[in-house]
Amino acid sequence: MSDNRDDRQASATDLLEIERFIPYRLAVLSDWVSRSLANTYQARFGISIPEWRILANLAREEPLSAGELSERTNMDKPRVSRALQRMVRSQLIRRETDANDQRVAVIRMSDRGRALYEQIAPLALDWEQELLSGLTDDERRDLNRLLDRLREQIERIRDSR
Amino acid sequence: MSDNRDDRQASATDLLEIERFIPYRLAVLSDWVSRSLANTYQARFGISIPEWRILANLAREEPLSAGELSERTNMDKPRVSRALQRMVRSQLIRRETDANDQRVAVIRMSDRGRALYEQIAPLALDWEQELLSGLTDDERRDLNRLLDRLREQIERIRDSR
Repeated sequence: MSDNRDDRQASATDLLEIERFIPYRLAVLSDWVSRSLANTYQARFGISIPEWRILANLAREEPLSAGELSERTNMDKPRVSRALQRMVRSQLIRRETDANDQRVAVIRMSDRGRALYEQIAPLALDWEQELLSGLTDDERRDLNRLLDRLREQIERIRDSR
Repeated sequence: MSDNRDDRQASATDLLEIERFIPYRLAVLSDWVSRSLANTYQARFGISIPEWRILANLAREEPLSAGELSERTNMDKPRVSRALQRMVRSQLIRRETDANDQRVAVIRMSDRGRALYEQIAPLALDWEQELLSGLTDDERRDLNRLLDRLREQIERIRDSR
């Protein structure tokens, strides 16, 4: 038993080639992608990756609470909260009281925030097309399908524990 | 000209469905994957995601400098540096002077760090298999190929600017 376990550990250690390990490959790729995309807006418009993600989510639906933004952007609350503070100062968003619950603050884009979003969105879409330009239509479909499948599987793993 | 630009902006704004935007989908998925994987080791072995990534890279090659670890783990230097400080305190790694250049500090796993890595590696590989269990062999090949292609394309974009 203990011998088996040692064997299994030794082979796992040999087998875990970090540069081929899927969780790691995804982390490295997604970070490269976010940073490369950020080159199209960061210097030119002076906003950070968290600020861009918040604008893009508000453009889809608003108002949203800080908690909802944290969930949708998948960023932790302190990070969202720091970004929101900067965005209030630079007048990209407004905080309002929820019409249904006076204790809850909700966030909307300001006209200035919307104008900025509308400048960045076409650049972001162009950049996405450049990223995908090496893939055929079939490969793009495969990519989207595989991302969906992995996401479903993560949900399954989470629910099973 | 200005009319065209307005049209293009309006349609881009409509087209950018953030939940289908590939850079965003990758970011959300990879974050879910890293966090779900971390559930297998964080509570049980008391190490963080950066510490795990550092151990896994040292297991592949050592010694490495802090800068090399920053590059390979794709984490910024302050984050790597904080993780290394914790790992020195918990005796998972040792800092040494580079044999070729006395001014450079390099990092190696301690016996304790290696023993920890050898406990986590099989769990991480099992978890990866669970993540991929919904995919056929062809789909796994597709996934790896698509991740390679996107990575090459990111490098091409970076080199062209």
